Amino acid sequence: MHLARRSRLQPMMAALGADAALITSLPNVRYLTGLASSNAALLLPASGEAAVLATDSRYAGTARRDCPDLELRTDRFIEPMLARAAAERQLTRLAFEAHEMTVERHEALTAAAPSLDLIPLGRAVEQLRMIKDEAEIELLAQACAITSRAFDQIVASIRPGLTERDLATLLERTMADLGAERPAFETIVASGPNGAIPHHVPSGRELAPGDLITIDCGARYAGYHADMTRTVALGPPADWQRDVYGLVAAAQQAGIEAAVPGTDVAQVDGAARGVISQAGHGDHFTHGLGHGVGLEIHEAPIMGYGRTGTLGDRVPITVEPGVYLPGQGGVRIEDTLVVRAAAGAAGPQELLTTTTRELLVL
Amino acid sequence: MHLARRSRLQPMMAALGADAALITSLPNVRYLTGLASSNAALLLPASGEAAVLATDSRYAGTARRDCPDLELRTDRFIEPMLARAAAERQLTRLAFEAHEMTVERHEALTAAAPSLDLIPLGRAVEQLRMIKDEAEIELLAQACAITSRAFDQIVASIRPGLTERDLATLLERTMADLGAERPAFETIVASGPNGAIPHHVPSGRELAPGDLITIDCGARYAGYHADMTRTVALGPPADWQRDVYGLVAAAQQAGIEAAVPGTDVAQVDGAARGVISQAGHGDHFTHGLGHGVGLEIHEAPIMGYGRTGTLGDRVPITVEPGVYLPGQGGVRIEDTLVVRAAAGAAGPQELLTTTTRELLVL
Repeated sequence: MHLARRSRLQPMMAALGADAALITSLPNVRYLTGLASSNAALLLPASGEAAVLATDSRYAGTARRDCPDLELRTDRFIEPMLARAAAERQLTRLAFEAHEMTVERHEALTAAAPSLDLIPLGRAVEQLRMIKDEAEIELLAQACAITSRAFDQIVASIRPGLTERDLATLLERTMADLGAERPAFETIVASGPNGAIPHHVPSGRELAPGDLITIDCGARYAGYHADMTRTVALGPPADWQRDVYGLVAAAQQAGIEAAVPGTDVAQVDGAARGVISQAGHGDHFTHGLGHGVGLEIHEAPIMGYGRTGTLGDRVPITVEPGVYLPGQGGVRIEDTLVVRAAAGAAGPQELLTTTTRELLVL
Repeated sequence: MHLARRSRLQPMMAALGADAALITSLPNVRYLTGLASSNAALLLPASGEAAVLATDSRYAGTARRDCPDLELRTDRFIEPMLARAAAERQLTRLAFEAHEMTVERHEALTAAAPSLDLIPLGRAVEQLRMIKDEAEIELLAQACAITSRAFDQIVASIRPGLTERDLATLLERTMADLGAERPAFETIVASGPNGAIPHHVPSGRELAPGDLITIDCGARYAGYHADMTRTVALGPPADWQRDVYGLVAAAQQAGIEAAVPGTDVAQVDGAARGVISQAGHGDHFTHGLGHGVGLEIHEAPIMGYGRTGTLGDRVPITVEPGVYLPGQGGVRIEDTLVVRAAAGAAGPQELLTTTTRELLVL
């Protein structure tokens, strides 16, 4: 599996005129080798199966176990070591990840192997990672199942007097109980007027009757990140709350339906955004429609912010429109789904998060 | 407080011949402004009180509330915006954080303001951060108190059959109950032979009689990171286990006693390492003696790995020697303490983590 991924990268390197690539982004190293480590790098020649994985002594045992097909080197300074290894092998044009490499580390690489010609690889590995294989989708589905199940379990506990922080903690614990290795990101609970802040940090505010409560959460499972948001009403919702909820739900449905292979991400964003704009709330939807998920919580493709690019087959994304009314509150509804060429029973989008999208009134 | 910190940085910038600095490391931005954000940067001229804080719309409200003394600008691309702001103000030599800035972002900066001369600032802010003010030490002490109290509460629950993962989860929950905003890092529980792996990831292995169990944990509180390790015995320890424990405890004590202002960190590392080497276990202590803690879990000063530098007054550090016997098990004992010039009742080192360092036999 990892060998196949590496061989898909090699022609992209060759097209840049690179003899080899130095992969230093940790999710990219994990994707290409299977090694989960906080300090690792991969030297991959543009052809052949020989590749060198470098890490430090803390991860050497894990690397030997998980990556038996790779030559392993351990060192305290792994990047200069790999640069020297490249030079020793007469590799001269080395592609590096300019979006990850710092200026300081780049200088150290140059100093370690002055004969190398360092050229930017671009986001080649990220581009490969956008299309998931079935094994990845299975892990992501597990992460999403844990997330939905945890949400469904805790929803009955939401009551006045509980703080935003209490609710976030309860949700993170429930995800851990159900098998999450960790939350995929810091859980957001935004109640009442705080709901107008898209990335609100859970506070000591007590939930109160009449609140809309936006809960944005996800489990990480085997390195894969789920992402789901639901907005619930504490007590009977006011008319404006029902209206905004209905609008965001309609926008989300339009976004989901537009997300088919071959469509440009700008069109998907536009499909959802158009629904909200037509209702006069365009200025209240202040972020992009969604993003890819996988070994990182935010990865390609990004939808919104003027981004373009065509959706492929087997691309997991989030669709998460929101409407935020300053001082008043907000609604966001988000699911993780897989865009697929072969339509399943549920249509060309396979929803991985399964909590009801009806407005829950508690 | 933040203004005073910024004015301590300004002479360091001036000494480099910089007109201004662009601070992009997020802990450094937080330290100099008080803003906790995942997307923020600071433009600080080398003299005067005018400074520009940039973030995106998600954090604008928080920034207005927490940093009223700073000019605030919001944009989706904050670094090019600040580079242009510097150029508009006729600032020409801009110091940047080369250890944080990627090659790609550096190119975008240059493109946004070609007239700027970008020079590396080095780790000037990290150097300032090494010496903590009393407000910071108070927050760190809270984080350490939560950590010790959580450990003391859960120790009675350690029993055969519990998995490493169960124990890690229990500890993280207890820290959250006691007020931690989050674990300071992923809790390590390494039992039996896994104890020989310094950075073991908690597994499904069940704790068994005869195990030594190494537990490395810490709470984060108001952004400050605690770090503590204890090794406990499940059932009466074998002679070798007692011996290794006694050796590591003696080495730790030697390290703590050596940590006084004016001493070089290499000497502190050497004091602990010498004890272990003299017992013939030098090759089994495979990492550095410790590190600074604060807004990051690992920060300056680093002790070990050939590092040098003099300890100052009010420097929180960890002292964490270990002995790791492949296939057999290991012991690590770690405390967070503050190196102080004015000796308190307990001596010149103020231990912030307070769990007993006696071998606990459960």
